[in-house]
Amino acid sequence: MNQLEKAKKGEPTREMQFVANKEKVGLDSLINNMAKGRTVVLASELHKKLKPNFKPLGIGRDLRIKVNSNIGSSPTKASLNHELEKLRVSIENGADTVMDLSTGGDIDKIRREIIKNSSIPIGTVPIYQAVEDKGNLLDMTEKDFLDGIKKHINDGTDFITVHAGVKKEVIPLVKKRMMGVVSRGGALLIKWMIHNNQENPLYTNFGKILKMAKKYDVTMSLGDGLRPGCLRDATDDAQLHELRVLGELADRAYEEDVQVIIEGPGHIPLDQIEKNIMLQKEICKGRPFYVLGPIVTDIAPGYDHITSAIGGTLAAYYGADFLCYITPKEHLGLPDIEDVREGVITARIAAHSADIARGLKSARDWDDKMSSARADLNWKEMFRLAINPKRAKMFREQCAPKDQTCSMCDKFCSVKISKELRKQNES
Amino acid sequence: MNQLEKAKKGEPTREMQFVANKEKVGLDSLINNMAKGRTVVLASELHKKLKPNFKPLGIGRDLRIKVNSNIGSSPTKASLNHELEKLRVSIENGADTVMDLSTGGDIDKIRREIIKNSSIPIGTVPIYQAVEDKGNLLDMTEKDFLDGIKKHINDGTDFITVHAGVKKEVIPLVKKRMMGVVSRGGALLIKWMIHNNQENPLYTNFGKILKMAKKYDVTMSLGDGLRPGCLRDATDDAQLHELRVLGELADRAYEEDVQVIIEGPGHIPLDQIEKNIMLQKEICKGRPFYVLGPIVTDIAPGYDHITSAIGGTLAAYYGADFLCYITPKEHLGLPDIEDVREGVITARIAAHSADIARGLKSARDWDDKMSSARADLNWKEMFRLAINPKRAKMFREQCAPKDQTCSMCDKFCSVKISKELRKQNES
Repeated sequence: MNQLEKAKKGEPTREMQFVANKEKVGLDSLINNMAKGRTVVLASELHKKLKPNFKPLGIGRDLRIKVNSNIGSSPTKASLNHELEKLRVSIENGADTVMDLSTGGDIDKIRREIIKNSSIPIGTVPIYQAVEDKGNLLDMTEKDFLDGIKKHINDGTDFITVHAGVKKEVIPLVKKRMMGVVSRGGALLIKWMIHNNQENPLYTNFGKILKMAKKYDVTMSLGDGLRPGCLRDATDDAQLHELRVLGELADRAYEEDVQVIIEGPGHIPLDQIEKNIMLQKEICKGRPFYVLGPIVTDIAPGYDHITSAIGGTLAAYYGADFLCYITPKEHLGLPDIEDVREGVITARIAAHSADIARGLKSARDWDDKMSSARADLNWKEMFRLAINPKRAKMFREQCAPKDQTCSMCDKFCSVKISKELRKQNES
Repeated sequence: MNQLEKAKKGEPTREMQFVANKEKVGLDSLINNMAKGRTVVLASELHKKLKPNFKPLGIGRDLRIKVNSNIGSSPTKASLNHELEKLRVSIENGADTVMDLSTGGDIDKIRREIIKNSSIPIGTVPIYQAVEDKGNLLDMTEKDFLDGIKKHINDGTDFITVHAGVKKEVIPLVKKRMMGVVSRGGALLIKWMIHNNQENPLYTNFGKILKMAKKYDVTMSLGDGLRPGCLRDATDDAQLHELRVLGELADRAYEEDVQVIIEGPGHIPLDQIEKNIMLQKEICKGRPFYVLGPIVTDIAPGYDHITSAIGGTLAAYYGADFLCYITPKEHLGLPDIEDVREGVITARIAAHSADIARGLKSARDWDDKMSSARADLNWKEMFRLAINPKRAKMFREQCAPKDQTCSMCDKFCSVKISKELRKQNES
């Protein structure tokens, strides 16, 4: 029996115990949320065997908001070591999962090495490589698409993105858009469907995909091939059409005992974020929501880690469970190591800020410790507690006065005055 | 008659016409909001004379959200040219106002040069220099405090922060805090009040200060000397005590025909932001709200431009009118030129994202133009429209494929596929 089957029978597994313990939630409550499909535990049977210290991860109701880091080669830049370094930097900076989206170089080798070297769950999007292996999108058969998925599952991926919700009937709605389709998987499938005049093979073969995923307890991440790529296209008919199909597919996965999460937008103005989360939670029956952003303005290439942190914090506050990071390179190029670091840290800031706002027990402890160190002008402790200790230390040391103050307020340091007054008061 | 007197009589001024025109709002509506104290127009009579191309600025109801950049020397780093460069970079990157918070070097000269060189409104916080000039905080007389204010007004500052709301009776509430007082002005005043066992001289002499401000139509920015310095202290009794006093003082200013804005927090968890804005708008009768942040988590020194962009966007969406930028150096040191640039751009992203969410007419045009350029893979136009064209261009060129795509998706570029499909469709 896999995780979901056991949860439905109310039986705990070692993975559930690990997650409940780590998240400080009751085991019964976790099992109940899993049984209802509101929480998933990422852990492929194969990945557990490949990596002895692999850590299962819970995502969903009442749990800490999780952060994913996207890495992967492209034809322009394909190096195994570079990708392994991105994996290391992602884990070091607190990513909860990593997705390998490689499309260049020895894709098989890169993916296998990433999985073998990762103690945290790995996700992949099999369609890119399936197209690459075939060499020609338009000639791909249904079997080619399915074989691509099987290969990734057999390599030990913990969750796979499958764009099964993009149906042929949605194409007229896409034509009304300003940006069209901005998901690579979505665009490839629509091009294939138009050329071959056939339904999305991932939709028609969804049952087969579920069987493959179930074999090793791989979680389905239902891709949003039609996520809006600009504010103008946000919450439009095409997006909502796909969301309804995803709701139907999620039910099928759940019935077949395959764990499932739903992917979401994208570019969404701030005032539509709450509505988007509510719609997903309603249509998809509270299943975990995995959002890419949302980015709240289109005008800031080079700063989209920030535009997405704004949207991501609010999305998580309203109920999204899992944030896919965006790096400063979004819309401009493939992220390098420093972009990965910046992306992970920024997304973690968003996730943590939302955890606090949601009243998650223990989330605020970290902030209170930092504030206590600040009130005491204890720089060593402030650096230790900082989300990026190296940067905090470097920034202070660029221009530090000789005493305990910092160069911003110097002798007018209000914290120093407060500390003195506190001491006067105590004596 | 000054701006507010004229507004109360329904008479337009050249400044009002300029603002209405620039903001694309009706002149009558602007005058009405000014007459009700919901909108201010920053423009000192002296600054207008000192700088021929000075541009008055409207802040408040139905107007674009504004952004302030804080510059200024400290004893650790005091250079006139450095501060003038910060002014230039602030204006170049779209700051709407600049505050000179200098506390080191030739403070008078720095302030005067900044005002003389600035086409946008300048704000100052006279208390720092007043203390510096006296050389000893505790011996300062009421006259010393007032003389400091007069000097800044006579130099042509457009708005002044006065921490008149910190009353002696609030001190026991401050003692309950984790971080105490984190506003420099607030801390200096509390120390003075305790030592001299007297009421806040800015409170007791508020009428005199109003007369000085009125002379040259300087706007009062009622400082929040008790803004919370950590999440634990957010929305606490001390903060709300001061806010009520600020409401009372704002009424007095309004009755004396002095324009007034209210300063606000600070460190506030995301779920308390709406409540904070609603309280200010209620207690201060819809007067413009000028927030510093709010920062939504305490654990990210080095990234507080981001934590404040998250809070600032939400604050502005709920009704704050004016965002004070926070730079990456916040809590660590005095910002340098690049920190100023980063701070201004990040705050503008927050302001613009909120303008879109509030449905401000024309705010979304910029985004739609960018999305149209993106859909067309028109990089030249994308760079031109980017909030920081240089950075966008540099990031793309670090790793650009030979064709129109970018190195992130390369040959799998979904935008390219969408563009092809659009062309097939059109032909």
